[in-house]
Amino acid sequence: MPAGTGQHLTPSQRLDWLRLIRSENVGPVTFRQLLNRFGSAQAALEALPSLVRNAGLGTRITPRGEAEDEMEATEQRGARFVGSGEPDYPPLLRYISAPPPLVVVAGGDGLDWSHTVGVVGARNASAAGQKMTRMLATDLGESGYTVVSGLARGIDAAAHRASLATGTVAVLAGGLDHIYPAENIPLAEEIVARGGALITEMPLNWEPRARDFPRRNRLISGLSLGIVVIEAAKRSGSLITARLALEQNREVFAVPGSPLDPRAEGANHLIQQGARLATSAADIIETLAEADPARRQLLEPDWEPEFDGGLDAIDAAPPSQDDRGRLIEALSVTPVPVDALIAGTGLSASAVQTLLFELDLTGRLEWSSGQLVALRG
Amino acid sequence: MPAGTGQHLTPSQRLDWLRLIRSENVGPVTFRQLLNRFGSAQAALEALPSLVRNAGLGTRITPRGEAEDEMEATEQRGARFVGSGEPDYPPLLRYISAPPPLVVVAGGDGLDWSHTVGVVGARNASAAGQKMTRMLATDLGESGYTVVSGLARGIDAAAHRASLATGTVAVLAGGLDHIYPAENIPLAEEIVARGGALITEMPLNWEPRARDFPRRNRLISGLSLGIVVIEAAKRSGSLITARLALEQNREVFAVPGSPLDPRAEGANHLIQQGARLATSAADIIETLAEADPARRQLLEPDWEPEFDGGLDAIDAAPPSQDDRGRLIEALSVTPVPVDALIAGTGLSASAVQTLLFELDLTGRLEWSSGQLVALRG
Repeated sequence: MPAGTGQHLTPSQRLDWLRLIRSENVGPVTFRQLLNRFGSAQAALEALPSLVRNAGLGTRITPRGEAEDEMEATEQRGARFVGSGEPDYPPLLRYISAPPPLVVVAGGDGLDWSHTVGVVGARNASAAGQKMTRMLATDLGESGYTVVSGLARGIDAAAHRASLATGTVAVLAGGLDHIYPAENIPLAEEIVARGGALITEMPLNWEPRARDFPRRNRLISGLSLGIVVIEAAKRSGSLITARLALEQNREVFAVPGSPLDPRAEGANHLIQQGARLATSAADIIETLAEADPARRQLLEPDWEPEFDGGLDAIDAAPPSQDDRGRLIEALSVTPVPVDALIAGTGLSASAVQTLLFELDLTGRLEWSSGQLVALRG
Repeated sequence: MPAGTGQHLTPSQRLDWLRLIRSENVGPVTFRQLLNRFGSAQAALEALPSLVRNAGLGTRITPRGEAEDEMEATEQRGARFVGSGEPDYPPLLRYISAPPPLVVVAGGDGLDWSHTVGVVGARNASAAGQKMTRMLATDLGESGYTVVSGLARGIDAAAHRASLATGTVAVLAGGLDHIYPAENIPLAEEIVARGGALITEMPLNWEPRARDFPRRNRLISGLSLGIVVIEAAKRSGSLITARLALEQNREVFAVPGSPLDPRAEGANHLIQQGARLATSAADIIETLAEADPARRQLLEPDWEPEFDGGLDAIDAAPPSQDDRGRLIEALSVTPVPVDALIAGTGLSASAVQTLLFELDLTGRLEWSSGQLVALRG
């Protein structure tokens, strides 16, 4: 699905999407599978109670009123929900594995979401690192690229500040009402005021926990054609972003430094692992300009939701308790393809799908890349 | 020809080799072709006068007495001449294109010439660059590698000093009596005193000119499994050494630095062009240990001199003035393979070879990689 195309959700569909994605144990992968299976979020919400009951465990389904409240509060905050099939969904984000079905976006109406570079790095950045960041972000912005970062202290904040005039996107680990760190709330406000955007997949009042940051990092890289790492320590969030970027088939650049400077360790290591050495915005732009058309040909959007029904499977006979036992026996902590489960158990594809949904909704399943499934360890 | 094998020259052969390589317009490529054609340096020296006469120009052939004087003076200086087919010729140097037929070596009797790393860089090195050089050279030396460099100020001198105890080779652009820069004469003496070596292809009293340094650089890389570049400016001798190393199929490493530091520009650029980023001796050793067996299988020595005659071509009829005109017409400033010249002129291979020798000796030919030939522009 190219940028700017797609189909708008109706207000009622959007509310159903929000109820479904906010329900317990429904992540992007399960959401997608439920939608593909039942044809719409509304049909999935109707089917969920019996799926949950069959699994013998209580999975909380978000009540309609709760979703309505979140929707209203978010809109009052000046932000909007955008679904992954809608024309204004960030186009590059569609190509990652398990894109968030809904993102909350504040600001950014005129932004170019297709020519984007993530600029990330250390919170305890040196003066030289910050200077380098300002140079890169300014030049990238003036060359027409939108700068994406994580609103952290240090490199992130320097990248946003240097690209306020040309357009920048801050990706949040928590909700819009819990911007972290608090010292960067004024910066977040200035980003929106000057045409940039804040974006998150979390509810308004979600306070970010440690595990939300790597999750957020997949959006920084997922929103970007490539990312640039400046002054990253060897075990740092920036290196996680770099790894995610590679998994998402995005370019990874790193700014080198002297081996005598410990703050250069992560970036130098990335270059040794194959990241491109960047000394200027020109290095980055040249690569992105060359890489772009090829990538666009190679990548397929990970998921295009079907809006037009497809409810075949609903009428199939529900799997028996015996079927359930067979499937659980076939699963282990080692991820296997769903096809292998179907072949291994002799169950129908429809029965395996239904049983996996049940397990998924009870929080016992772990999906990798949306293709492999394992029991949680 | 593996390291340590080969055949010693007799004193009389060595003197003929020296006369031939010191004769006007006889470089390593012509030397090799003359030896292959006439079977020995002695036979080539006998044939030269008529070749030169036929070409209608005077090419000075080094008189026997002059070569004897150089030989004697060099030996009195404590140095020796080593021919490219002899067992003590530096083994890695055999694999470069056009290895020097004779090198002058002072010291270095117990040195390991097979496990060698070239360490090169800026003359105006920073304190950090010199510290980095000391760390690398010390660690490389303690890991059993001989450190090769060019005895220049800055990085070169730091590399030699840090590896005095473990063995180091200084490659000179001039003769042993014209060590440049003069401030490093004590360092050169200490290198030899502590078991290291000085090596050059130039006569004792040769004062190095600007063009001798790139020529010397091909020996630094040619003596080394790989080279490390530290703090090189963008247009510098170190980058020439790096290019030559790549042409010689050697590994190239570069120590990165901040893009804000102009002294890092050359090394960062090399990494962008494909050189390996090195932050420690371990990075270098790991690559050389992996690369080594593969390279040794891939490379063939560029030339193994034939000591046992092969004088077939000498008796062939000499080419006519008409043949000479045809060949010159077929040549241009664009390099062509010798085979193409033979096919294009309809002359015999023997006639083409003889005419090329004549032209070569008059300084009108330019050889590329020993395979392609062109008229000098």
